[in-house]
Amino acid sequence: MRPLVIAPMGTMTLEPLSIDSVKDLIEDSIEEMVLEKMQSPVDRPAMSLVKEILMSGGKRYRPMLAIIGYQAAGGREIQKAMDIALSAELVHTATLVHDDVYDQSKMRRGKPTLHSTHGISHAIIAGDYLFSLGFELGAKYNDRVVERIRDSCAGIASGEILQFRHINDLSTSPEDYYSIIDGKTARPFAAGGACAAIIAEASKEFESALWGYGLEMGRAFQLVDDILDLQGGDSIGKPRGTDVHEGKMTLPIIYALTMLHGSDRDHLRDVLTNFSDERMQELGDLLEVSGAFDYARTLVSNHVERSLSHLSPLPDSASKTLLSEIVMLSESRTS
Amino acid sequence: MRPLVIAPMGTMTLEPLSIDSVKDLIEDSIEEMVLEKMQSPVDRPAMSLVKEILMSGGKRYRPMLAIIGYQAAGGREIQKAMDIALSAELVHTATLVHDDVYDQSKMRRGKPTLHSTHGISHAIIAGDYLFSLGFELGAKYNDRVVERIRDSCAGIASGEILQFRHINDLSTSPEDYYSIIDGKTARPFAAGGACAAIIAEASKEFESALWGYGLEMGRAFQLVDDILDLQGGDSIGKPRGTDVHEGKMTLPIIYALTMLHGSDRDHLRDVLTNFSDERMQELGDLLEVSGAFDYARTLVSNHVERSLSHLSPLPDSASKTLLSEIVMLSESRTS
Repeated sequence: MRPLVIAPMGTMTLEPLSIDSVKDLIEDSIEEMVLEKMQSPVDRPAMSLVKEILMSGGKRYRPMLAIIGYQAAGGREIQKAMDIALSAELVHTATLVHDDVYDQSKMRRGKPTLHSTHGISHAIIAGDYLFSLGFELGAKYNDRVVERIRDSCAGIASGEILQFRHINDLSTSPEDYYSIIDGKTARPFAAGGACAAIIAEASKEFESALWGYGLEMGRAFQLVDDILDLQGGDSIGKPRGTDVHEGKMTLPIIYALTMLHGSDRDHLRDVLTNFSDERMQELGDLLEVSGAFDYARTLVSNHVERSLSHLSPLPDSASKTLLSEIVMLSESRTS
Repeated sequence: MRPLVIAPMGTMTLEPLSIDSVKDLIEDSIEEMVLEKMQSPVDRPAMSLVKEILMSGGKRYRPMLAIIGYQAAGGREIQKAMDIALSAELVHTATLVHDDVYDQSKMRRGKPTLHSTHGISHAIIAGDYLFSLGFELGAKYNDRVVERIRDSCAGIASGEILQFRHINDLSTSPEDYYSIIDGKTARPFAAGGACAAIIAEASKEFESALWGYGLEMGRAFQLVDDILDLQGGDSIGKPRGTDVHEGKMTLPIIYALTMLHGSDRDHLRDVLTNFSDERMQELGDLLEVSGAFDYARTLVSNHVERSLSHLSPLPDSASKTLLSEIVMLSESRTS
């Protein structure tokens, strides 16, 4: 494990970081936390259950946003932002573990989900434990940070509840869709950006810049996720069409239901209400014909543009460039 | 809703409180929090789901311990302890909602459980939301308090995992039993006591007095719960024998398995491994013959005694008397 890079005091010069080096720092910190908790008798049984999932990779966008956002907002000691970075990742992992329970997902990141190997009970407990770890790290900061973490969690819960209300609801509107994804994805990304600025003791202007950056990046990120569920290859780590099986109304589907007419629309409704793996190609063709993928990709580009434009108040720096790179990476990703 | 009782500044005189008046304060504060969150768009969907369960009563031992412990340790503004009190209740309610999912419990406190009315998904999300509310309130305090809340949560998770390891395990020892109940019940009670002292800015001596008080009270409390599952009447709010159906090895059963011999022991093993509601009386008789209930009741009394003796360093006060009353109430309770 390599030591954390801490900028020398009294200077604004920072060792230039790359996305990979930040990701390595995050992986090292996660590993360090896992090892520390494994030493504690009170944590060991619970940590034994979650350590594999914590160290099994993942894209780490949330913690990267926190670390690099902190630097871009003028923060000079990465270590100070590491707790919020890990907090974001832990809370996110907690929600994944719990989502997989009620979505009955068998695979995640190319591996069997915790509930499919250990049962519902252990997956629920594991998620609860991950939440408590995430909150512990988040609670180290001031009230404004804690409030944003809390709001994120409330938003995730409310977003999930809204999503359930629209399961199999073919009249779901784009506004409904944005309420759902803002709650479960975009606002948590935004909160990560804002918290990074608060921890860097940056101005309100920088705080709202990073909030906006995170919000738009989160929207782009979720849209890409939803497109990949319909169009992605094996690299997405779970079966294609999972959202469709679960009756989730994602934007390409909402768009196609609006744009198609007559027999095409009836056909689409039939595919959605009587979906099976064998009808994936049929669904893809209908979405293609409706222009849903082009539309969704255009929206992704718009959110990416807006995310980048939110960065404009921040002074130019290597970190600001990295923030741009992350957004563009999230647009072009295939997993 | 009546205003909170806040002691006048600069005086040690407190309005004498009764258990009922403290419980009323807690109920009012919970109601206030529910109403406040219902105003927030980000919370409303999630709070709508949990508000009934939050306001549906419950014994409120955990928040009472925090409030009265705070006063007994010299704290003079109840309001200062209200957040930790509610935090303890919220985290506890979160664990109940999640427990009911994986225990597949249909009833809790005489009402249908959330997962039986709203499904697994909503119960998991509801619990997660309750956790986040609990952490938000807990995070308002200093690091020592946050650390104890976090340790509690890790202990609950680890305690539950240990409990699962011993499901249907007829060789479970009393030591295993205490590891389980310390994690899931006694240490959270202890943490509540210790946090109350920290928030009251009391000495380390008082902090460890209230830790010990809470720990022993929590053990007594869980033992009584386990006895009530075997002997309780309709007032316990859930079907008798629930633990036995779930294969949980509670102390009366562990004791009887050790003390009975020959055909009685074979009979008990048969009842446990082939349990049904019709065999409740048969099980009760075997436990009675073994002396398990007398033994468990003796242990309860011992823990109550120890809990009370931990209070000795605290100066005599109305609050200290209330703390004694709560422990004795927890011993004699029938629900």
